[in-house]
Amino acid sequence: MTAIGIYGSAGRMGRVIATIAPDEGASIAGGVDAREDPVPLAHHADVLVDFSTPTALEAHLAAAVAAGTPLVIGTTGLSPTHHALIDRAAETVAVLQTGNTSLGVTLLGILVEQAAQRLGPEWDIEIVEMHHRHKVDAPSGTALLLGEAAARGRGTTLNEERVDGRAGLVGARTEGTIGFSSLRGGTVIGDHQVVFAGEGERIELGHRGEDRSIFARGAVKAALWLAGKPAGRYSMAEVLGL
Amino acid sequence: MTAIGIYGSAGRMGRVIATIAPDEGASIAGGVDAREDPVPLAHHADVLVDFSTPTALEAHLAAAVAAGTPLVIGTTGLSPTHHALIDRAAETVAVLQTGNTSLGVTLLGILVEQAAQRLGPEWDIEIVEMHHRHKVDAPSGTALLLGEAAARGRGTTLNEERVDGRAGLVGARTEGTIGFSSLRGGTVIGDHQVVFAGEGERIELGHRGEDRSIFARGAVKAALWLAGKPAGRYSMAEVLGL
Amino acid sequence: MTAIGIYGSAGRMGRVIATIAPDEGASIAGGVDAREDPVPLAHHADVLVDFSTPTALEAHLAAAVAAGTPLVIGTTGLSPTHHALIDRAAETVAVLQTGNTSLGVTLLGILVEQAAQRLGPEWDIEIVEMHHRHKVDAPSGTALLLGEAAARGRGTTLNEERVDGRAGLVGARTEGTIGFSSLRGGTVIGDHQVVFAGEGERIELGHRGEDRSIFARGAVKAALWLAGKPAGRYSMAEVLGL
Amino acid sequence: MTAIGIYGSAGRMGRVIATIAPDEGASIAGGVDAREDPVPLAHHADVLVDFSTPTALEAHLAAAVAAGTPLVIGTTGLSPTHHALIDRAAETVAVLQTGNTSLGVTLLGILVEQAAQRLGPEWDIEIVEMHHRHKVDAPSGTALLLGEAAARGRGTTLNEERVDGRAGLVGARTEGTIGFSSLRGGTVIGDHQVVFAGEGERIELGHRGEDRSIFARGAVKAALWLAGKPAGRYSMAEVLGL
Repeated sequence: MTAIGIYGSAGRMGRVIATIAPDEGASIAGGVDAREDPVPLAHHADVLVDFSTPTALEAHLAAAVAAGTPLVIGTTGLSPTHHALIDRAAETVAVLQTGNTSLGVTLLGILVEQAAQRLGPEWDIEIVEMHHRHKVDAPSGTALLLGEAAARGRGTTLNEERVDGRAGLVGARTEGTIGFSSLRGGTVIGDHQVVFAGEGERIELGHRGEDRSIFARGAVKAALWLAGKPAGRYSMAEVLGL
Repeated sequence: MTAIGIYGSAGRMGRVIATIAPDEGASIAGGVDAREDPVPLAHHADVLVDFSTPTALEAHLAAAVAAGTPLVIGTTGLSPTHHALIDRAAETVAVLQTGNTSLGVTLLGILVEQAAQRLGPEWDIEIVEMHHRHKVDAPSGTALLLGEAAARGRGTTLNEERVDGRAGLVGARTEGTIGFSSLRGGTVIGDHQVVFAGEGERIELGHRGEDRSIFARGAVKAALWLAGKPAGRYSMAEVLGL
Repeated sequence: MTAIGIYGSAGRMGRVIATIAPDEGASIAGGVDAREDPVPLAHHADVLVDFSTPTALEAHLAAAVAAGTPLVIGTTGLSPTHHALIDRAAETVAVLQTGNTSLGVTLLGILVEQAAQRLGPEWDIEIVEMHHRHKVDAPSGTALLLGEAAARGRGTTLNEERVDGRAGLVGARTEGTIGFSSLRGGTVIGDHQVVFAGEGERIELGHRGEDRSIFARGAVKAALWLAGKPAGRYSMAEVLGL
Repeated sequence: MTAIGIYGSAGRMGRVIATIAPDEGASIAGGVDAREDPVPLAHHADVLVDFSTPTALEAHLAAAVAAGTPLVIGTTGLSPTHHALIDRAAETVAVLQTGNTSLGVTLLGILVEQAAQRLGPEWDIEIVEMHHRHKVDAPSGTALLLGEAAARGRGTTLNEERVDGRAGLVGARTEGTIGFSSLRGGTVIGDHQVVFAGEGERIELGHRGEDRSIFARGAVKAALWLAGKPAGRYSMAEVLGL
């Protein structure tokens, strides 16, 4: 049985992963949290999963490289510097980094990219998401992930096309832009919808998260898939076989 | 048969009203457009419908008062000064002013007010609307009408609670606020949804406009209802019997 | 503090009610399950809540009557005979019976009844619901509750207008009917939507259950409201103040 | 400019195609209706579009073959015999047959097939559609087209997995089935949604038709694409470049 080592084991995601791993056919090699040495766990585990903080990432990557153990990174809020570190580590060990470990959102991203690629720029793209009242940032990281998928499908980048928080006398819509709307309220775990609005018709591609365990299960599935893989940088899409 | 006089007869709504009135059991007494004298029509018609411009409203109100003919006002973009003029005219003639003449939106506003009244402030209110890519302002007048209904239900005003265009590190949601999100794209005539998000459950109250004729038909229904009414200021809600 | 006695305390709802009651400002007087004598608990409790089985209901009503203790009934699958027993008990004690104890669904039922009353029969009514893959019956009891609210608003009964499971060459829609559609899949707790489809516009009134605790919390709120009330049959709508 | 010949030119779709073709950069070579000889038009046109009746199809195919002119078939209600005739004609001329000529539905079918292929059988598939009150059959042809796409993605056939009109004590859901729900009401042109419901999450892929002209425009786009193609049987998906 594949043994998973957890970086960030005391966090919400770390604890759910430990609970849920046996259901998915994995065992837990152990956990490491803030200020603990990540190296011994990297040697004991078949694969590592990181849901800690960006500041801890560098040490976790070094431990994974030292032990030659694959690493799944679900920690969010990474900077370009972090991505460069990940790329470097991926030269000697298998690394999979993602902004959302649910299989549903990963598949949705793939479908959005394809739709954006197939539909001409006369189809306007809008992304709307709803999360619980405690979420402090908008749009959600997952909404941005979907917007990036749409931009990639169109051969552009989200930075060039992104429109946030439309309000006031904003004028007619500019062709090619991707609009974001963020609803906040209640206890919503996370709903996302990408609307492609054309002449006389609309395509709506959406995802509803009902239970936070989907993120933990996706992380475990990714870990099982990554264990034993050669060096390289992988994505959740590959876990789905795309 | 009730004869309707149209102010703004050359505009899009004016023309649709003229086309549709016979289906609703009304006849057309005539039409008046920019720079034409509104007084003769006021004397010929049983009831007047105004879909012109805010600047023309004062003359139309004066004509209605002079002739003692009831007036339905669907012109949007009115200021407090216009509302004061309407209140004055309503002392001598029946006047009905509304931001949306569709029966569906009018009923939705009533339901939203009741829901907001019954549900405590721990139910967060979000309003999301989508319109075609040519619409220049956000949120839509109808979204604001629904927001005002929600605020009224809670015993507050929209001005105090309104949150537009959430984007960036906005922090957790403030209790009691009413959030607005505006999607733009394609040829959408007008979709609106009011979400009440509570602890573990959501109520969603929405309207979809499929055809612009609903606004014209609602205006004719309002005119038929208003014809013969005594002086006073009326609302679309009363047309529905509420 | 109001002390709640639970009939059906070992069932899923009974256990959640016991867990959740303190958060709502209530205490638990005790619980009774199958084959246990319900009478002593009726004397100890300020108010009783029944989420047991239809066969146990008669004994629970008798205990409530004997002790003069109000009773909230959330048990489903009741026959006309059960309703006659409830009416009889309500002559000497306060009884509240409902098919759904969530505040959201209760409010939705009230809004649906009003909408059906205000909109003419040319607005077609359709009810669609989705529940998890293990649910064995269709449509859901809550969908039927909403259909009854719509029929009541129209001055008719659901029995006369109900259309289930449209499939095949069914012909054009008959005016006045109320259609039901039931989706089953995954782990959906319970989504309901009532669509009023008119000429060129639609009103959509819906509810999404995110967490089963909403039913337990609604039951406790109903119990707190019912405690101390005089004899009579009450509804969840009254708990909401309508 | 490509000249389109219309079979079924007096029907609703035939007339809209004639109106809309110039906007899409095509001209109209002429039209033929019931009891008229289809052969001369086949010789004059660069490409033919058929929105007539199944009984007329055989003669239209023969005319296309005789003239060597490509043919787009949007006529619905075809039997296996018709499909055999189409296959035969496709040996000597280019033929494209589809149940829905809108680009949006065609793309949705492709996305649904991919989603069904990627997601395991533990993701339950449900298809829900809404059409106007005059539609006589259920589910819609487009819903079945989407169901076939889902079945194809799973390596099975719709006949084996189709479940219509769930009502009564139907028992728990059977893994692998594809459920259909049909709402009817008002003037809805055609809304479709495919729900993939998994453990703790849902993916929803949908299409909303706002204007019937999308079907005519899709047919003209298909005709422009098919003109000049070699013999063979083509699909709308190929028009989109997939």
